[in-house]
Amino acid sequence: MTIPVPQGFRLSAVPCGIKADPTREDLTLIVADRPAVAAGVYTQNLVCAAPVTVDRQRTPSDKIRAVCVNSGNANACTGQRGLTDALTMAQLAAAACGAAADQSLVMSTGIIGVFLPMDKIAAGIRAASARLGSDEASFLLAARGITTTDKSHKIAGRTLELGGRTVRLAGMCKGAGMIGPRMATMLAVVLTDAALTVADAQASLVAAVEDSFNCISVEGHMSTNDTLLLLASGAACDQPLAGADLVRFREALREVCIELAKQIPDDGEGATHLVTIDVQGAATRDDAFRIAKTVAESALVKTAIAGGDPNWGRIVSAAGYAGVPFDPDRVSLKVNGTQLYRDGTPVPFDAAAVSRSIRDNRETQVLLTLAEGPASVRFWTSDLTVDYVKFNADYST
Amino acid sequence: MTIPVPQGFRLSAVPCGIKADPTREDLTLIVADRPAVAAGVYTQNLVCAAPVTVDRQRTPSDKIRAVCVNSGNANACTGQRGLTDALTMAQLAAAACGAAADQSLVMSTGIIGVFLPMDKIAAGIRAASARLGSDEASFLLAARGITTTDKSHKIAGRTLELGGRTVRLAGMCKGAGMIGPRMATMLAVVLTDAALTVADAQASLVAAVEDSFNCISVEGHMSTNDTLLLLASGAACDQPLAGADLVRFREALREVCIELAKQIPDDGEGATHLVTIDVQGAATRDDAFRIAKTVAESALVKTAIAGGDPNWGRIVSAAGYAGVPFDPDRVSLKVNGTQLYRDGTPVPFDAAAVSRSIRDNRETQVLLTLAEGPASVRFWTSDLTVDYVKFNADYST
Repeated sequence: MTIPVPQGFRLSAVPCGIKADPTREDLTLIVADRPAVAAGVYTQNLVCAAPVTVDRQRTPSDKIRAVCVNSGNANACTGQRGLTDALTMAQLAAAACGAAADQSLVMSTGIIGVFLPMDKIAAGIRAASARLGSDEASFLLAARGITTTDKSHKIAGRTLELGGRTVRLAGMCKGAGMIGPRMATMLAVVLTDAALTVADAQASLVAAVEDSFNCISVEGHMSTNDTLLLLASGAACDQPLAGADLVRFREALREVCIELAKQIPDDGEGATHLVTIDVQGAATRDDAFRIAKTVAESALVKTAIAGGDPNWGRIVSAAGYAGVPFDPDRVSLKVNGTQLYRDGTPVPFDAAAVSRSIRDNRETQVLLTLAEGPASVRFWTSDLTVDYVKFNADYST
Repeated sequence: MTIPVPQGFRLSAVPCGIKADPTREDLTLIVADRPAVAAGVYTQNLVCAAPVTVDRQRTPSDKIRAVCVNSGNANACTGQRGLTDALTMAQLAAAACGAAADQSLVMSTGIIGVFLPMDKIAAGIRAASARLGSDEASFLLAARGITTTDKSHKIAGRTLELGGRTVRLAGMCKGAGMIGPRMATMLAVVLTDAALTVADAQASLVAAVEDSFNCISVEGHMSTNDTLLLLASGAACDQPLAGADLVRFREALREVCIELAKQIPDDGEGATHLVTIDVQGAATRDDAFRIAKTVAESALVKTAIAGGDPNWGRIVSAAGYAGVPFDPDRVSLKVNGTQLYRDGTPVPFDAAAVSRSIRDNRETQVLLTLAEGPASVRFWTSDLTVDYVKFNADYST
């Protein structure tokens, strides 16, 4: 995949010794050559990490010069000392590119409840600032530096022609566990060289999140650190986008966010299936969302898919406890295109064939149809496997 | 354990071929010698099984003569035919003891979405009605007949002296998977020979459920079939209980329900730990409940306990997304009596010792303390193990 790195940014990542493996990058630095417009969306967890507290106060903004991300330590549940550490980390990143202390943002991901090793962070920022680059390799290195239990880095990009100018969008994200929606999941950064007003940047990001990072789940555990940032350098434009150009940009941003978000459950810890759950015919989008999320987070649904088991009663019964009113006698269900349940009654089907279609494909499609109204939602989750349990039964110790 | 079988009831169970193993009892019949007072509490799942629909219409009541339970088939998501089957099953059970068609209740548990084998049910009711007994062995047999994936039957009992008379309480329940609260979980029956008014029976049962069956979870998936029944024969009393006697009876009923309910997560599918979660210092009981339930249903918390991993950040972060307002800087946490987190800051602790205390004990104690008010709740759950996933990846096929 070729990622079009937006103009006006330089990136790098280095190993600084936070992760146990000394060869793995664990500190990423992103520098904007000139003050960039920055928008942010954060976890709704009441117990939020120190870097979230810092960034929330600083966005939206029109003067951000640096974003510093460490992986391997979440700086969450670390009290006053954690907040001081996050501010120091931000100050070091700002200083590394000659900016004022409050012109930087910080993100952290990894184990909860352990204080940041500030000497390693400081050394890492120094080393990373000496290796900044604006080519694709630098972007990929930066994307790798924010990962933890991810099997690989997660990236997406678009190039748009807007009013005769080429505008680039490039995003990275991380996350494989502790993924639950109603937030911007884990860590993600989208860069663009489009020019945006602060208000448009924030509004575009909030809109893009609804159909992307808010519609994914691995096990439904909302993280303390979830952060999605949009940085717009404006290097490709004279004036902030407006009118039809802004609409096209927003659609491209939405697509990039969906493409990034789907990679998270696809790489869910131990996952062997990416499950797409469509709920249609709901009275409102929120109703559809709550049903999709409840189905997506049922351990019984997820283990059935892991086992290639067309045990559809688990899907219908999960919908029933989502807290959304609907007529159970008008519910229908398809799995991988095969009708299993229609208007509240079982449909005879070839169980062996449906089981094979689940087993033989990485992606499973679930379509639950109600008869309450016109609203729908698409949601992505992973299955629940033995490897998920093995992995998470011994993560910290 | 000796169970005091209440006077006025006869019970039995037989294998009738619903379960794959032809030697396992799968049809239980409970007969009241004279019309009994009956109260019921049912699943709040919108997609509820046919027997739930039938029983909900028939309770509370003062004329119930029979309860018939089959295991191995839930008669859920079976449409109009399922409802007809449940009514036929109820009618056959009533006829077996010479009662009118509407004097019986029915319960079903097992696979969702498969029609009941009515010929087997009819033969089973005939066979069971020929073997009814009022001794403890008959009670144990009946308790075994309602189980599915349970490792053993689940029972509890009490004997009370009320105003010079001996009153007995004896309960049975089943359930190991698809266990989520806000309902009376899965199937449970409590028998008593106390005399109760219909209103007192229903009110006592609703009250007992709050601290027992509504406070347990295995994976949080609310079943379509959850039913808890209380049958009072009145055989030990002249008059309905009142005043202090009624208060003592209600407390004993609550104790029996808690004792039954705890056995369900203790026998959770694949479980190696029974986890007790106490949330204290909440503003309201509902706040405490929502936090306890959210912690109890986090796959990350449950896998950590399975692995003997004192990864306490998962517990605190789960509390943070429960949707309950609290001051995160005044949260404290103990696991198995060891303080891990105090007023929003990590406490140094001997991780190896806490890990050992989790590994070496069947029960794990989690105490989360807030500083919002006087309310508390106690909640029970199981851990999440590789065996849970293996089991549920291939249950129906």
